Parts: sequence; C-alpha cells; structure tokens
Amino acid sequence: MITRMSSLFLRTLREDPADAEVPSHKLLVRAGYVRRVAPGGYSWLPLGLRVLRNIEQVVREEMDAFGAQEIQFPALLPKEPYEATNRWTEYGPNIFRLKDRKGADYLLGPTHEELFALTVKGEYSSYKDYPVTLYQIQTKYRDEARPRAGILRGREFVMKDSYSFDLTDEGLSHSYQQHRDAYIRIFDRLGMQYVIVSATSGAMGGSASEEFLAVAPTGEDTFVRSTESDYAANVEAVATPAPPEQSIEDKPDAQVHHTPNTPTIESLVDFLNAAGLGRTFTAADTLKNVLVKLTQPGAKESTLLAIGVPGDREVDFKRLEAAVSPAEVSMLEESDFTKNSFLVKGYIGPGALQANGVRYLVDPRVVRGTAWVTGADKADHHVVDLVQGRDFTPDGVIDVAEVREGDPSPDGKGVLVAARGIEIGHIFQLGRKYADAFALDALGPDSKPIRVTMGSYGIGVSRLVAAIAEQSHDDRGLIWPRNVSPFDLHVVVAGKDEALAAGGEKLAGELSAAGLKVLLDDRKASPGVKFADAELIGVPTIVVVGRGLANGVVEVKDRRSGERVEVAVDEVVEHLRALVRG
Amino acid sequence: MITRMSSLFLRTLREDPADAEVPSHKLLVRAGYVRRVAPGGYSWLPLGLRVLRNIEQVVREEMDAFGAQEIQFPALLPKEPYEATNRWTEYGPNIFRLKDRKGADYLLGPTHEELFALTVKGEYSSYKDYPVTLYQIQTKYRDEARPRAGILRGREFVMKDSYSFDLTDEGLSHSYQQHRDAYIRIFDRLGMQYVIVSATSGAMGGSASEEFLAVAPTGEDTFVRSTESDYAANVEAVATPAPPEQSIEDKPDAQVHHTPNTPTIESLVDFLNAAGLGRTFTAADTLKNVLVKLTQPGAKESTLLAIGVPGDREVDFKRLEAAVSPAEVSMLEESDFTKNSFLVKGYIGPGALQANGVRYLVDPRVVRGTAWVTGADKADHHVVDLVQGRDFTPDGVIDVAEVREGDPSPDGKGVLVAARGIEIGHIFQLGRKYADAFALDALGPDSKPIRVTMGSYGIGVSRLVAAIAEQSHDDRGLIWPRNVSPFDLHVVVAGKDEALAAGGEKLAGELSAAGLKVLLDDRKASPGVKFADAELIGVPTIVVVGRGLANGVVEVKDRRSGERVEVAVDEVVEHLRALVRG
Repeated sequence: MITRMSSLFLRTLREDPADAEVPSHKLLVRAGYVRRVAPGGYSWLPLGLRVLRNIEQVVREEMDAFGAQEIQFPALLPKEPYEATNRWTEYGPNIFRLKDRKGADYLLGPTHEELFALTVKGEYSSYKDYPVTLYQIQTKYRDEARPRAGILRGREFVMKDSYSFDLTDEGLSHSYQQHRDAYIRIFDRLGMQYVIVSATSGAMGGSASEEFLAVAPTGEDTFVRSTESDYAANVEAVATPAPPEQSIEDKPDAQVHHTPNTPTIESLVDFLNAAGLGRTFTAADTLKNVLVKLTQPGAKESTLLAIGVPGDREVDFKRLEAAVSPAEVSMLEESDFTKNSFLVKGYIGPGALQANGVRYLVDPRVVRGTAWVTGADKADHHVVDLVQGRDFTPDGVIDVAEVREGDPSPDGKGVLVAARGIEIGHIFQLGRKYADAFALDALGPDSKPIRVTMGSYGIGVSRLVAAIAEQSHDDRGLIWPRNVSPFDLHVVVAGKDEALAAGGEKLAGELSAAGLKVLLDDRKASPGVKFADAELIGVPTIVVVGRGLANGVVEVKDRRSGERVEVAVDEVVEHLRALVRG
Repeated sequence: MITRMSSLFLRTLREDPADAEVPSHKLLVRAGYVRRVAPGGYSWLPLGLRVLRNIEQVVREEMDAFGAQEIQFPALLPKEPYEATNRWTEYGPNIFRLKDRKGADYLLGPTHEELFALTVKGEYSSYKDYPVTLYQIQTKYRDEARPRAGILRGREFVMKDSYSFDLTDEGLSHSYQQHRDAYIRIFDRLGMQYVIVSATSGAMGGSASEEFLAVAPTGEDTFVRSTESDYAANVEAVATPAPPEQSIEDKPDAQVHHTPNTPTIESLVDFLNAAGLGRTFTAADTLKNVLVKLTQPGAKESTLLAIGVPGDREVDFKRLEAAVSPAEVSMLEESDFTKNSFLVKGYIGPGALQANGVRYLVDPRVVRGTAWVTGADKADHHVVDLVQGRDFTPDGVIDVAEVREGDPSPDGKGVLVAARGIEIGHIFQLGRKYADAFALDALGPDSKPIRVTMGSYGIGVSRLVAAIAEQSHDDRGLIWPRNVSPFDLHVVVAGKDEALAAGGEKLAGELSAAGLKVLLDDRKASPGVKFADAELIGVPTIVVVGRGLANGVVEVKDRRSGERVEVAVDEVVEHLRALVRG
C-alpha cells in the first residue's frame, strides 16, 4: 500500500500550538496526527488514526490470545444501573449527564462495570458457564475538571476495558494474573518503558490493584522505585519497613524537661543539643503528634485521630487520605482545640491523647522499645526518652509519613528514588461489589447460588498514542516504534527531476508489493522541507531517493539513531523487508 | 482461528423477544448477536460484533480504493459550529444535547458536515490542495421519537459518513459519481438486493440526491419501481410523464351544467353518465381543485395555493410537502372559506381561482388541449369541456398527485409497482451551504478565493447488519452472505463419543491452519440442539462430524439451500477452502 504525500490530508505545522505544554501534545499537533475540536476533544487525522488502530490491534490480539471475548456496549447509557451501584451519585460532576426527549436520564459511560455485570447475568446462569472474560475497545467519556496535554487527558477517549467473572477468589486471582501477563506483552510489543506499581483504588471500590505507568517526566503520577530492584509503587502504596523491636530494659527513664521557645522541631533539636544531655539529638529522634478529624461516610460527627510520626517527616496527606478512605480527613480548627483543652498546641504527647480516649496511631518506625522526645502536654515542656511499650502504647500503626528519596526499598534491596509516570493500564480485583448490586449468582452443582467475583482491567488506548510519543521523540519530531508507526517506510524523493520521481515511484511500488506500508513523499517541495517533515512525522526508517540513484544506490536512514547507509537499488527491497520484519 | 461454542459468550434463545416485530430483530436477539440495553441502544455480543466489523471492513476497503481518507471526529461536539449553520435549532428534539461541568452546550453528533468543513478549512488553503474526500466510520446519535426494530432504527448507531470537497460543480459531480460507484461495489460485495432511488433531501439542504434502499417488505421507506427497467424512485421523486399536448380547435365549447347532488367525484361521474351527453365519463375526466395554505419560513401569513389533479387521484401530502419545502403546508379552515367567499366548496373551478389571484398549479397530465369536467364556482354546477389553454391557463405544474401501481414508468419502460425498502445509503450533492457558513475558500491560481462545494455521503453500517438479516433468513434462522458471516464454517460435532470430539477438533484445527475462521460446536449438547443453533446462527456452511466419520466422511451442508453432500475426510479441507474462497 502506498500513501502519497501529494494527496495525503496532512499539513505539518512549524510552530507549537499555543496551548501545548508537553512534547507529545506539541508534536502530535505539529506533525498532523490530531487536531483539537473542543476542550479535551480531538479529531484523529489520517496519521493519528493509523497509530491508534495499530495500538488497538496489539491490544486486541493479546486479549484474544488468552481467551477474552470482545463485545461492545453503547456509550449512551441509562441511569438505572449506575443508580443501583450508587455511581450515578459518586461520580458527581465527573461524568456527562443528559436527558432524552422524554426526560429520561442518561450518562455517557466512563466505565462499564454495571453493564458487563448485567449482561453476564442475562446470559449465564450455571456454574458451568464460568469463568468468562469480556472486553471492549470503546470510546469513553469523563467530564474532567482540567482536560490537559492533548490526548493525554481528554474528555472523550478510547479505552480497552475488560471484566473477568469468576466463582472463586482463586479464579479471580488467576484472571487477574492473565491480564497482568497480557498487559506486559502488550506494553512490551508497543516498545514502552513502564513500571508496574501497587496502587490504591479510586471510585471503583475493591482490593488488589496495580497500575502500569509509562515512565515519563511529564507524567501526572508520582511513584517511587528502587535503585537496586524492580520494586515500584505509588507513594500511597509504599509499605514502610519497620525496624526491629528493641529491648525496653536498657532504656533510661523518661524525663520531662522545660524547653522554652521550642515551637518547632528544629528549635527543639537545637535546644536539646545545647542542654548538656550527653548525647546528640536529630529531628528523627523526636515524635511529632499530628491531629486530624475523620468523618465516616454518612456520619454527621467527626472523630479525632492522632498520628505520631518521626519529627523529620511530615504526614503525606495523599497517603493519609488513601489510608483512611472512605472516611474523609479534615484539619482541626481553633474551636476543636477549645473544646479539647487537653490538647496543648505544640506540646501534644501520647499521654494526654490516650488519657482522653483519642485514637492514636503511629508510624511503622515507632516500634516497641524505641525512645522518643515528644510533647509533655504542657506548654514549653517536652519529655525525653518516652519509650514505646513502656511509657505509651499506641492503638495501632498507620503508614502515612512522607516517602523520601533515599528511604530503604520495602523489598530490602536498594533505596527509593522518585519518578513520574503516565497511567496506561490498571488491573484491579473488584471482588463482589457489582455482583452484590445486581445479585449476579451462578447456580452451583448443589443448586445453591454462588455469588460471582469480578475483576476490572483498563488500558488507555488513545492515551497510549501520547504516552508513546512522550517516550519516543527528539527535538526534531516523533520516533515511532515499528509496531505503532503509521507506515513501515517513509520514501523521500529528494529532488525534482523526473528520473528521481520515477525511481521513487518504482521503489515504492516494489516495497508495497513486498507487503510493506509505504509513505511516499512525491511532493514538489524542496528536499529540506521533505527531510524536516520526515523527521517530524517519525516513521522509523526513511529511504532517500536522491542523487545516488544515478549510481544505483539509495540511502536508508534510521530515524532514531540518525545512522545512514547506502544500499544498492537492486538489494534495497530485501534489505528493508528484513529491517521492518525484524 | 477456532472459536469454541463451549466457551463462546453466547446463549441462544428459543422465544422471540417480546418487543420484536421484524425478522431481523427477532433473529439477531434469538441468535445472540445483540442485546437491548436501552430504548434504541444495543450491545454487540461476540457474533454481532464480528458481523459489524466485517461490514465495516468492506466499506473501508471500497472507500480507500477510490482515494477517500479515513479520519475520526469526536462524537461529543461543541454547539458553536452547529449554531453557525442553524442546525442546532433545526434538529429540534432529534439530537441529544448536554452541558459540561462549566455549563457549556454540547451535542452528540448526528452527522458531521460542520466539523469536516472546519477541518478542511483549517488544513487547506490553496486550489492545489483540492479535491479531497474524507470519511469516518463512527458512532452517531439521534434522539429518535420512535426507535424501533432493534438495530434497524436505533438512537446510537454506527455510520460511515464521508464528505467531498471540490472547487467546481463538475468536480462535485465526479466525486458524487465516485461514491455512487463505490456504494454499488459495497452493496454488491455484501450480497444485498437494493435499488437506487432518486430522493428528496431532509434537513441537509441541497440538490442532487439518491438513496440506496435494501428491498425488504419490513422497510420503512416506500418506493416505486418499473416492471420492465431499472427505474426506481421514492414516491416524492417520481416525475409523472406528461401526455402529448392536444389541439384546441376540435374541442366542443365549455358548457355549464346543473349537477345537483354531486358532492363527490363518484356521484358527479354517475350524474354525467346518466345525463345523456353522448359519451362516457370516468373520474379521470374530472379536474379536482384542492386548496391548501403555504407558510414560507419566517413568514407570519400564509397564502392560498390551489392544486388541480385528475379526479381519480388524491393529492399525496408527502409529495406535496417535498414539492413546496421549505414552505409548510396546512389545510384550510372554515374561516378561510368565509374570508374567501369565491371558494364554493365542492364546486371550485379554475375561473374563480384565477379571477381572485389564487396561485393555481396543475398536475402534469393537465396539458394544453385537454378538456375537463370541473367546478363552475357555483353550488350544484359543473362545467364540462373546460379546455386547458383555451378556457383556463394554470400558473404552472405541480407533480403531487398520488403515484399508483400501474402508472407508466417515467422512463417509458413498463409500469410502476410499489415496494418497500430500508435506507442503507444516501449520496447527496450538498453544494455550498456549509462552505458558505464557514467561508471555506481555496485561494485560486489568480489569488482570488474560490468557494468550495461539498458532497455528503452516508452508509448505515450497523443498520446494514439488520438489513442483511431482513433479506437473508428463513424460519429457522439467519443465513449470512459469506463476506459478512461471523465465521467461514460452523463445524458441528454430532455426538458425544470421544472419537467424534477428537475428529471435530482435528478437522477444525486443519481448517483453521488453512486460514479459515471456524466456529466449532464442541458442547456436550444433543445433536438436535446443535443443529438448531447452527441454523439459527446462520454461518453459510455447516460441517457435520457425525457417524460417517467412522467411514471416513463428513457432511457438508449449505445453510441456504439445505443441500448436503458427503465429503471424504482427507479431501474436505481443500473442498471447504475452495467453497469459502469461491
């Protein structure tokens, strides 16, 4: 198949679009892959649609390969199933809602758990029917507050969403693993650099969950990875390793000290080191007690929660929110301190908290036998050598202190470093939430109902176009991996004389006959313009039909490395076929 | 590729769905191709999605073959472009409208003329860029008042819509013809029986227009076709042939007769034939003058229009509406007769109409020289032998009398018969309406702007699934044309013993290796259940692996004809490959 630039619906742009901040957005617009139609709404021009379809096809093949079956739902969905699971309400302003001419409520589907569960319920009834995995590659809608970065975060986008239906937890684990393996094959075939991170889940509610993040400095998601292993996780999911417990017996007694003018950890440490206590203190020796209020879903009253973390770390509110979800976190107000006069601001210690029934959870580092400098519940006073398990006993552990680069990796290998990524896939053991909502049961061999358990798995297909572009470009343009590229070869006729044009046509014809997808630049433009467009468009192999043709050679250029080789015309078809087919 | 019935997400139904009236709807649901999700909203189960994709692929190949370029727009579109063309208002309740979280207005795209025009304007500027034809295969939305017949008239559906952009009317004609030719190839490849009818256009506004109708008794569209030629047309578009003009000289003078008690054409004819006028009259000799009111768009007042048609025919209001569009037609009320006392109900003649300045248009059969019995503008009186061109001269011709079976075909060959069809394609010379709305100009060779002219062309891709099913089924189930069938072959293991199961698996494996798509019924069900399902599902060739296997033969059955042949196992792969590949 030959596509000719002379008639291709493509006009490249020299300037970056004004609204573009990230490289993929700039380059996909400049190279004529996509155009903005509305906030978060893009049209796919011929080149872009080809890349999108190539990615779709890789996803489809790997889903089919493990027995997932493709179906397709409408995007325009009635309200009722989403009311049954409460998502109609939970989504808030994040979904598009509309009414039909009769006033009935509809939404544009953001994900289709409800419809898949209802469909399986409609078709299947016996335990013999299970397990089954269904998927669709479909246009989805979310009314993002801040659509950004072109197709990286749009309001209309293409997703592969799949759902597994099993009768047992072990079955669900197996389906989950099948997806995990398929995702690895998909992202490998797409030539991506990615990490699989443990994740907490959003509005979908459930348990085991991992995200696939394409590593990219422009990504919205922060994660940490080990310097010496494959370990990677969202900061919300990092499990801080607890140090070994220590003996209580050899610890000095706790002593209250008058510590005037020490409102901050830093001033406290300075004071202690100047106090002649015979040892050196750091912020990590202090125990900071942070108070928040928790409101359980549906509750009118909030309750106090105290969190003890080493004084050299802040509480990470994203981690805290994830840890206490679905409860909501809020900060204390002045009136809360007035109401609870035992809270001496700046000098809160475990004593008053526990004496007054405030739930007190501590960082995993605060193990039995560790000794701390902390508040003495009295203005201008701290207590030194307050020992966990001797002088205070927390109500439990909460792992919400900030994660820092240099922290030990939870797997014991290396230390953590921070990185950013783009979420390209998400696998998730939903469990029985949706099956419960719709009473999705299979009739068991004993004629008793078995409640089905589900998994939910997504790949951002249109987002992948941008994610790949983020990972694979240089300052001259895009560089597509072979499996994704809109064409196998970009043949540039570098000159205007007729022999070159004829030579280019002939070569393109032979390459096409060999089963290769060829983009032929047959325009009357200058070689400079054509080369610049070829670099911008990013087909991985560029074939230059130029002055060498008279000597029986053409030039084959690798877009990524810039390497050029001259190849004899009568060998070039076989040379290129081998290059493309690998 | 082998798909096994034992794990396929498919449960056939024995009963027709309660809401189904037409065969395609009943069978596509019973055979597990689609499921209803909402009014006019269907999910595609695995078999249905395969058929849909096969049709898409045929459409895509034929569009690509003549140089049309595929792109894709969002379905969720901002209001502004549709306001610029007034379609935001014109569509009334027929489109889905919604607001985003910021209150901005959006619609779900019913067709994309505006977006295509704006996109071409955004990319192209010079006359050298043209012509170009772009298309998409995309999910579209219409808020139908009465979604019906399953996927035949849904509210969410898949369409191929394409748009041609030319600089000249001749160019547009050429693009139109390219589409017409491609549509013929598409519908031929899909094995359809169809007619191409001249059409009038709906809300899109423009000139030359044809519809492709799949012939089906359940179709919503009525058309007429010739008994002896290819002529076919919507009744709105039938051009009644005018008889030859006649001489005025040899006609007797017009005479007014007292015709008491002749309020109907029938009573008038009876009266005349009993009046001893020396000849026999039929209803076709009378001229009936029908009055309506026309309201031009934006006008507050209506004007009278009188229509003269032979007394044996009624005015067809659908034809009338099409003929006077965009004016609106309404009937006269009693007050209109009071206001216009010259209108003598039941006895209205050309005389009073023309004397009082009422626009008077007549049927094409009312040519110069024809003599008519018509109202004498006086109660109980008619005039006989009122001759067109001598006694009255109409203001023009209007072709809105009912079209009847047996009428001569406008092409002079045979007579018309009525038929029903399903609109599967529409090609349409839009002209410059959208180019005008967006000032879509090309810079000409003389640096002057050339206004672009557009064509708009649609194929109802998802509707085709149902249209094909309407044309190709029997009382046992669906019968797919080969190019459309979800599988090439349906291999039925007819029996439970292990040798048969192994034989079926082996054969399916060999067929799959030969590049054929195989549905293998490997279930533990009885042969009767399997055969019934095979007939219902409708794969065109059914291969039965049964008792004959012991003697080295399998049975190959043609789903449509029911013919069965026994084929030796060692020849069957080649036999079937030849059958499928034709």
